[in-house]
Amino acid sequence: MESVKVGIIGLGTVGGGTFNILTDNASEITRRVGKNIEISHIGARRDNPLADTSNHQVSRDIWAVVNDPDVQILVELIGGTTLAKELVEAAIEQGKHIVTANKALIAEYGNELFALAKKHHVQIAFEAAVAGGIPAIKALREGLAGNRIQAIAGIINGTGNFILTEMEERQAKFADVLKEAQELGYAEADPTFDVEGVDAAHKLAILASLAFGTPLNFNAVYTEGITKITPADIDYARELGFKIKHLGIAQRAKSGIEMRVHPTLIPKTRLLSQVNGVMNAIEMEGDQVGPTMYYGPGAGALPTGSAVVADIIDVVRQMAADASDRIPYQAFQDDQLVDETIVPMDEVRTGFYIRITAADEAGVLSGITRLLSEHNINIQAIIQKPNDKQDDNTVPIIILVQRSREGDVSAALEKIAALEHVNSDIIRIRAELN
Amino acid sequence: MESVKVGIIGLGTVGGGTFNILTDNASEITRRVGKNIEISHIGARRDNPLADTSNHQVSRDIWAVVNDPDVQILVELIGGTTLAKELVEAAIEQGKHIVTANKALIAEYGNELFALAKKHHVQIAFEAAVAGGIPAIKALREGLAGNRIQAIAGIINGTGNFILTEMEERQAKFADVLKEAQELGYAEADPTFDVEGVDAAHKLAILASLAFGTPLNFNAVYTEGITKITPADIDYARELGFKIKHLGIAQRAKSGIEMRVHPTLIPKTRLLSQVNGVMNAIEMEGDQVGPTMYYGPGAGALPTGSAVVADIIDVVRQMAADASDRIPYQAFQDDQLVDETIVPMDEVRTGFYIRITAADEAGVLSGITRLLSEHNINIQAIIQKPNDKQDDNTVPIIILVQRSREGDVSAALEKIAALEHVNSDIIRIRAELN
Repeated sequence: MESVKVGIIGLGTVGGGTFNILTDNASEITRRVGKNIEISHIGARRDNPLADTSNHQVSRDIWAVVNDPDVQILVELIGGTTLAKELVEAAIEQGKHIVTANKALIAEYGNELFALAKKHHVQIAFEAAVAGGIPAIKALREGLAGNRIQAIAGIINGTGNFILTEMEERQAKFADVLKEAQELGYAEADPTFDVEGVDAAHKLAILASLAFGTPLNFNAVYTEGITKITPADIDYARELGFKIKHLGIAQRAKSGIEMRVHPTLIPKTRLLSQVNGVMNAIEMEGDQVGPTMYYGPGAGALPTGSAVVADIIDVVRQMAADASDRIPYQAFQDDQLVDETIVPMDEVRTGFYIRITAADEAGVLSGITRLLSEHNINIQAIIQKPNDKQDDNTVPIIILVQRSREGDVSAALEKIAALEHVNSDIIRIRAELN
Repeated sequence: MESVKVGIIGLGTVGGGTFNILTDNASEITRRVGKNIEISHIGARRDNPLADTSNHQVSRDIWAVVNDPDVQILVELIGGTTLAKELVEAAIEQGKHIVTANKALIAEYGNELFALAKKHHVQIAFEAAVAGGIPAIKALREGLAGNRIQAIAGIINGTGNFILTEMEERQAKFADVLKEAQELGYAEADPTFDVEGVDAAHKLAILASLAFGTPLNFNAVYTEGITKITPADIDYARELGFKIKHLGIAQRAKSGIEMRVHPTLIPKTRLLSQVNGVMNAIEMEGDQVGPTMYYGPGAGALPTGSAVVADIIDVVRQMAADASDRIPYQAFQDDQLVDETIVPMDEVRTGFYIRITAADEAGVLSGITRLLSEHNINIQAIIQKPNDKQDDNTVPIIILVQRSREGDVSAALEKIAALEHVNSDIIRIRAELN
């Protein structure tokens, strides 16, 4: 039986998982592919105790794998964008196909890497870069190929979703849950990439490019983290019928494309709001199919490895095909990408949850509602609570407003913050109202 | 630009939807494919007022499309298994590729049609046959290709799910909701295929074959409809923390493969239980990825058309490829299909919801629990209600039992039905307990 030779660089969490899947499921995979997929060379600076590579060629110098003339497919799982980019470029120039789980590499350098791959007639596969084990890129690029994609909304960072879920279920503070997530291994020692939304922004940039046929444009993604969410806001949101999730949203608006990552209220009746813990889910709405959703584990050795292995299988199946007949990386033919306008955040229209702390004095609420009205902001619901949580003479005023221009809301809140009796620290969380 | 010529036979709901998508989204599709997809010939016994075919060649004799030498891809959307099979076979023998939404045709004759297609080096694509617009077959066959699939559980009939959802939300009777669904066009005049589970069984047979690499075996699917579900059972299930859904389940057990369609209690905490109305969703569990779920509209002109068009695009992309490099129809190479044992229904183990109507007399409950115990059936919860709904001197006894052998439960219930004071009409609904 024909064998295809695969080199793996990086034997950490995902590298170890990929190795184990290819080894443990070798016969099932051969039943599917009709060829052996052979791990012919591994490059790793250190061993992974969870991956028994004793029967394989292992090099401490990962360049040895890239430069190995027998390797036909290079699986890049070292992460980062500096060395990874050099290694991938060198492999492409040698005519090797690339499979990668590296969202930062694709989001930031995909445009040039895809062009280089085209020049050298090789493939780059990156399903594992978005939403771990969920075949989201395949659904978007192939499954919904008859559609003009209207909108994508996803819970695409498991760490953040775990933290928000725990905060909700146990009414715990962000800092406490983060610390626990770090102890459980769900969050990194430096959690910035996850909790500040950078990781989600990388994934969203990739999804948006594939959805709309635009060049990758990571720098244009508006990014806001979850560090300021409090148990009180989660509670008030629940009273209003919503859950707070950290969403990546990419959608068509009249004036262009919106790309944004931020905490968002979602109605409890929407399936996406029920996605809890470390799980990921992505809603994709096509003009023909309507709403669809894809759910599964977004991270971890075996889920992400599952996507890497599916990509290896895809590459093997396509190796014989003429490059021009292959599924294009960004879902559209590369000469058909369109540089759509990115809508500035001030022009984006969403609902808003607003929490204002104010002195318990007559006239404060009417001053607030007047300013909202003057900025064309319509109120959908107000909750005014008695002073039961604060130590001082203040009360929280929670206002849910209908879809409004972000710029108008910012201007109104600036004026509200300057009102007498109002605390200048106003919480604002965007809301999907249906 | 190169054109690929498509013939469509059948211009009903799905045919009209497919025509409209190919027409309305022609430029978006060409941006994706790099070729024109041209509807060169339509075969339809009558016009569809929703599809303006005035600029197209239309034949009343659908054989004219099959025999048209210009047609490269035949899109079969007439349904049924007699004429459809003849037409598809003739087209294959002429070297035409096939795209079909016909679940009955694939479930019942897929084995022979796939062999015929292989002989004639053409493709058969059938994403639209399962779960309408959801790219479920693509997820299973390609996205999870690194996995040994363990289990599939799906809400794969929108009509049935609409009826159960309405019954739950309005505490309405099956017959009343069915009538309403028929008036709304959600249910056929003869609803047997939907409400008795035949349609779901067709889809499940296809999914099971792709999941496990087994020949299609529609006749082996255990099939039970939803006609006996009552609002009272939905209520009691809710009290126990469950929803009742009509599920198709295919999974590996110790002694083989289970394939079954029946009403099922699902815990409210499981995402699948929150899928309401005409929507479909399929859970797929792989040994590596863990649980994943795919959600979207399972029927209708445009959702199903979306899947048909995605298949046409797939076929166009693969037309140049050598047949041996293509994705195999049943996910596994055709010489690698294994005829797994189908587990007889009596050997299947699930939880059960049991509703017994009994005279309000001392000793009845202990007689029932003794018989369950004697058949190795463990009780998880009991609800005994006062006589508030019945006109006579009876009370309902609701028992949730732990995972038990179906054969044991049948034997125990037969003996319970024969007890003094017990009504012989015992309701039994299988339950997924986690």
